[in-house]
Amino acid sequence: MFRTIEWLDESNQVRLVDQTKLPLKVEHVVTDSHERIAKSIKIMEIRGAPAIGAAAAMGMALAAIESQARTKDDIISYLEKAADTLNTRPTAYNLTWATSRMLRKAKEVDGTAEDIVNQLIEEAKEIAEEDVRMCRQMGEHALSLIKSGFTIQTICNAGSLATVHLGTVGGVVRVAHEKYSDIKVYAVETRPRMQGARLTVFEFMEDDIDVTLITDGMVGTVFRQGRVDCCVVGADRILRTGHVINKIGTYTMAITAKYHDIPFYVVAPWSTIDMETDPGDVVIEERDEDEIRKVNEQYVTVPTAKVYNPAFDMTHPELISAIITDKGIVKEPTEEKMLKLYKA
Amino acid sequence: MFRTIEWLDESNQVRLVDQTKLPLKVEHVVTDSHERIAKSIKIMEIRGAPAIGAAAAMGMALAAIESQARTKDDIISYLEKAADTLNTRPTAYNLTWATSRMLRKAKEVDGTAEDIVNQLIEEAKEIAEEDVRMCRQMGEHALSLIKSGFTIQTICNAGSLATVHLGTVGGVVRVAHEKYSDIKVYAVETRPRMQGARLTVFEFMEDDIDVTLITDGMVGTVFRQGRVDCCVVGADRILRTGHVINKIGTYTMAITAKYHDIPFYVVAPWSTIDMETDPGDVVIEERDEDEIRKVNEQYVTVPTAKVYNPAFDMTHPELISAIITDKGIVKEPTEEKMLKLYKA
Repeated sequence: MFRTIEWLDESNQVRLVDQTKLPLKVEHVVTDSHERIAKSIKIMEIRGAPAIGAAAAMGMALAAIESQARTKDDIISYLEKAADTLNTRPTAYNLTWATSRMLRKAKEVDGTAEDIVNQLIEEAKEIAEEDVRMCRQMGEHALSLIKSGFTIQTICNAGSLATVHLGTVGGVVRVAHEKYSDIKVYAVETRPRMQGARLTVFEFMEDDIDVTLITDGMVGTVFRQGRVDCCVVGADRILRTGHVINKIGTYTMAITAKYHDIPFYVVAPWSTIDMETDPGDVVIEERDEDEIRKVNEQYVTVPTAKVYNPAFDMTHPELISAIITDKGIVKEPTEEKMLKLYKA
Repeated sequence: MFRTIEWLDESNQVRLVDQTKLPLKVEHVVTDSHERIAKSIKIMEIRGAPAIGAAAAMGMALAAIESQARTKDDIISYLEKAADTLNTRPTAYNLTWATSRMLRKAKEVDGTAEDIVNQLIEEAKEIAEEDVRMCRQMGEHALSLIKSGFTIQTICNAGSLATVHLGTVGGVVRVAHEKYSDIKVYAVETRPRMQGARLTVFEFMEDDIDVTLITDGMVGTVFRQGRVDCCVVGADRILRTGHVINKIGTYTMAITAKYHDIPFYVVAPWSTIDMETDPGDVVIEERDEDEIRKVNEQYVTVPTAKVYNPAFDMTHPELISAIITDKGIVKEPTEEKMLKLYKA
């Protein structure tokens, strides 16, 4: 699998895969303009929290080059404007985190304008590398749970395309596949937005990993038939109690896995864990009804049909065999065990 | 809800709703030609076993009129050719059953050619009425299980459009709605072929029954939130052991219902019950991979993606609260109880 985003050393450009074209076309955006990066984030040519964090950092490095500034003050002034331009998605925490870290770095450097530019390039590359390392760590921790010949059921896309490289679930699958080469994947298409069909199938096929697409309602049948050895899913948020908020369909899959005694693993970076919120206080976003009424802009039901479209669901810890993080694994999660890892 | 198919007495024509246009357009085929009926069956303007049985019977009555025969022999000779024309779907048992019954009737009548024509029209109308009565019987039996204010979760389309009128699940919902007026429905869209989104939502909206569309993966969340009081699903085949073969997704829904202690009811005419086959011998049809790869003829994944597409699944009796038939209800089905109803 190619990297979702990378810095091209020879030309000091950024190259990212245009995810709006996937899976039918693989096209890249190659640019030396931070404004073009801002546009890519805004129109979701790149998406996924870790991936857009890296994009914003690389955008800041491009801005430093563009500035052609001779003094530190001039660079910083240019970078502050660039940071505003890059923060195109107001609720995306990773964007402000990345642009702030780059600005702080620029201010720290004690050297020429050229020194600052060079160190910002290195910092952006480091942010990307940290993401790749974290995904690999999760994959390596998971090796204690995955055996040769395993078939892994997943949902949505928690793969390479949501990160710089590897992914969270993608990291677990790829690290295991590097070791055993016979790891297989079942992906549910993940209605309504079809991230499983569009992205997960695409990226595992790119890596020659054996992936089979099924519809969301088929999990019971594939579990019953013994086609799957464990489930590995990502998480949008994990509570200190071990409750997992993830893409709609995760909870139904977890119940169905439990019924068949199939281990259900959740993989996410430690930064996903929310130590504050209680399970009863979680608000599940309801999205546009047309996401269900339409596929590819065409109606699949009565255009005025009443629809319920929660984007996420919450799975309680009794259904979760283990939470895999970059810091380590919590088996049969409880608040006590989560707190222990948090303090470690 | 209009009838799926009906005989127009004033003009001696057949009118059927063109299901290939649903749900975006409601158009009817009105014809006095048995060949046009044969075409409707073939291109699936009408589908569903009971509905195409009635269509074939009405096609035979049209043929009797068309023949303009003066003698019984001439009518029967014309009807034998018409039966061949109407049997366009070789595996559809109801087609041959209906055309044979109409031919037998023609042979039985002791009278003029005109008498035969008139009795064939009555026989075709009776076949349609028997179907409607059977659906109503199932709905009335189910009244012992459905309370005022219930919300019913269903899958696929086992409604009016698969029968002449009412439907199996549709009969349960409509009879309960006639009595209580506050019955609500949740329909899963039922990927890959979207019968829930296309047909079930449409037909309940036509009857002003409150119906909400969700994706297949959302059942866990709506059950957890207490939005549903019971599940009612149809069946393609029911074994003497109480195992139910139905649209893919039924088994996952049944497991999820059991986990939330939500009653899971199966409704089907007694003719659906197969007293011969053992659960281990059931072969599940696998359908074209493009049903999953495409929606409305457009790809939603990599065109060469590997796909598993079983059309049906099997739910074991431990997950089924009751089987509702036109002959009566079997609660917590076992082979013994099924046999008892069979012999009744």
